[in-house]
Amino acid sequence: MEKKSARTPKKDYGKIALALHKKLGGKLEVVSKRRLETRDDWSTMYTPGVGAVSTFLAKHPKEARQYTMKKNTIAVISDGSAVLGLGNIGPLAALPVMEGKCAILKEMADVDGIPIVLDTQDTEEIIKTVKHIAPGFGGINLEDISAPRCFEIEERLKKELAIPVMHDDQHGTAIVVLAGLINGAKVVKKKLESLKVVVVGAGAAGRAITLLLRQAGINDVIVTDSTGTLVKGRAGMAPYKEELAKRSNPRKVMGSVADAVKGADVIIGVSGPGSISQAHIETMAQDAIVFALANPIPEILPEDALRSGARVVATGRSDYPNQVNNALAFPGIFRGALDKNVRKITDQMKLAAAKKIASLVKKPTADEIVPKVTLPGLVKAVASVIE
Amino acid sequence: MEKKSARTPKKDYGKIALALHKKLGGKLEVVSKRRLETRDDWSTMYTPGVGAVSTFLAKHPKEARQYTMKKNTIAVISDGSAVLGLGNIGPLAALPVMEGKCAILKEMADVDGIPIVLDTQDTEEIIKTVKHIAPGFGGINLEDISAPRCFEIEERLKKELAIPVMHDDQHGTAIVVLAGLINGAKVVKKKLESLKVVVVGAGAAGRAITLLLRQAGINDVIVTDSTGTLVKGRAGMAPYKEELAKRSNPRKVMGSVADAVKGADVIIGVSGPGSISQAHIETMAQDAIVFALANPIPEILPEDALRSGARVVATGRSDYPNQVNNALAFPGIFRGALDKNVRKITDQMKLAAAKKIASLVKKPTADEIVPKVTLPGLVKAVASVIE
Repeated sequence: MEKKSARTPKKDYGKIALALHKKLGGKLEVVSKRRLETRDDWSTMYTPGVGAVSTFLAKHPKEARQYTMKKNTIAVISDGSAVLGLGNIGPLAALPVMEGKCAILKEMADVDGIPIVLDTQDTEEIIKTVKHIAPGFGGINLEDISAPRCFEIEERLKKELAIPVMHDDQHGTAIVVLAGLINGAKVVKKKLESLKVVVVGAGAAGRAITLLLRQAGINDVIVTDSTGTLVKGRAGMAPYKEELAKRSNPRKVMGSVADAVKGADVIIGVSGPGSISQAHIETMAQDAIVFALANPIPEILPEDALRSGARVVATGRSDYPNQVNNALAFPGIFRGALDKNVRKITDQMKLAAAKKIASLVKKPTADEIVPKVTLPGLVKAVASVIE
Repeated sequence: MEKKSARTPKKDYGKIALALHKKLGGKLEVVSKRRLETRDDWSTMYTPGVGAVSTFLAKHPKEARQYTMKKNTIAVISDGSAVLGLGNIGPLAALPVMEGKCAILKEMADVDGIPIVLDTQDTEEIIKTVKHIAPGFGGINLEDISAPRCFEIEERLKKELAIPVMHDDQHGTAIVVLAGLINGAKVVKKKLESLKVVVVGAGAAGRAITLLLRQAGINDVIVTDSTGTLVKGRAGMAPYKEELAKRSNPRKVMGSVADAVKGADVIIGVSGPGSISQAHIETMAQDAIVFALANPIPEILPEDALRSGARVVATGRSDYPNQVNNALAFPGIFRGALDKNVRKITDQMKLAAAKKIASLVKKPTADEIVPKVTLPGLVKAVASVIE
């Protein structure tokens, strides 16, 4: 057997995944709830019987939620512009990730997820396309769409569609990060609201995390991008970053990550490999909390973070402790939204979901600040706060 | 028990179908081919393992056909403008039909079908939308889109996409009609090519049937619309009807269905209830063949057609003999197209499919001119000619 290194995952999951994906030829199947065996099966599932269902729905379109797939189906939509931490690799390369999300939706929450990958990265075209295909779906999960287009796409679709629309890279991530911080603060015995937080990465996740932490009462949040800290008045910022600067960095810290992180309690990487260093962590406050969430390769490896004095370390990966995994949130959120015919996922629901997820860890420890995705009752608990 | 009438179907399938659809809440499920139970399942189906698949596909996008759902998935797309014989009843009312088609694709051919219903009936918007969502699919089945828009939509998508696109209401119907006629001609002992055929209805199906019958060597085909026979030079015809008039009605018969049908061997209704009368059939040649294909209510009831002298009668329904059912064709066609990576469904393939379907009835009789959809080997046989 190969010697296991602490620096690398225990197995070559990439190699195993490639072989598995080729063997399966796609991870999903679309099956009929009824077999078509007898003539009666055909006559009720299809013509002539289905004509009565269509005639009925023509008169009562709202009943489609009871009589069709719309009742239980979420479209998982990506343009392939920001796939995992891999960047703009296009729709076909994004497809295995979308299929994975749909597999998770079904396995965890009995939600039928349908992957749709788009051949356009134009904001208006994406909005129009999603609206055009929306009638058959009970909700829309936007996925792996790069900032800042993702903000307008989500906002517009939320306004213009009567079904819930959620960009999971923003809100799913933010919910689970907040859940982890609630418990992380308990582990290091600090007050959540008093935490000094640095968010490395001002993309989709960075923005949503910052806004949700602010909603949760955490005032001292600094966001950094490749240029440095977002600070009101910094020249040449994109409009959404200007907006974000107004709602963060109350001490108006200027400079780099190194400047922002001095004395901070929490650093959250939603950027890419290498953007958090051991030197950064060494300058943080006692009992630092490090979330290195880039996938598949985190901003800093957990063992390096711990060696530099971090007390609590989380990643996005399943092969380390504390997996800040969107799958803790989105299956329950969509389960709840479908069951209760919720039209919008509000900030209040997101906060409630984060608190609920945190509460599922009875005694948080440095190695367990979030529940495992396999925790029984997880989806039901999260779904219960969506209403 | 109620007395069974020969004039109505034996069961109230509409009522049964409504109850079943409500109970099921949609007819399809999207399931994961692998359970997500262990950490290893998660790490290979999703992150970190899936990152390697995405990275690989970013470099080798053509391999998506082997590693993703694209390998086995067909989008079944409708704008709800021409649903069954019910007309323009919109996307939600169309959805149960699309779900039914997807159930059939899976049950018959192990093809994963995904229903997409559109909130637009604009030709250009439909074309753009289908192109935008196409990357994840191995083929496109257009469905229940009204003429003449369906012609341009299909033609353009066939040109602009690298996957097979088929409007089933046109070509699926035409293939099965030709299969039925091949055997119907045998039953009445007439030569296929010499049949005089009247097609009642110049919509999507009427046009496709006419063109395929012409391809099969049948010269004397007359098409009628609500104004009368399509004949070269008739004033005010839509461009596609002018085109169709040039390719049909060699005897330049003018007038109504009644004028066209005198002495005809075959009448094919792809119109709506009531458009074929007993009086029409009484004027046809000996051993008339009547296809009354409107769904769910045929142009004339089989018992009435038989009483007026028809020898062979077919409908689109499963509760009468001789169901001219697209399900005899489209599952095998898409199975073959996916397996052999066929980029276009050609006229040659359609002719071959019709002949193959006809050949599956060993001894055609008046009550069996097409095989049953449950015939073992049907899909494999049809798929075998798609290459």
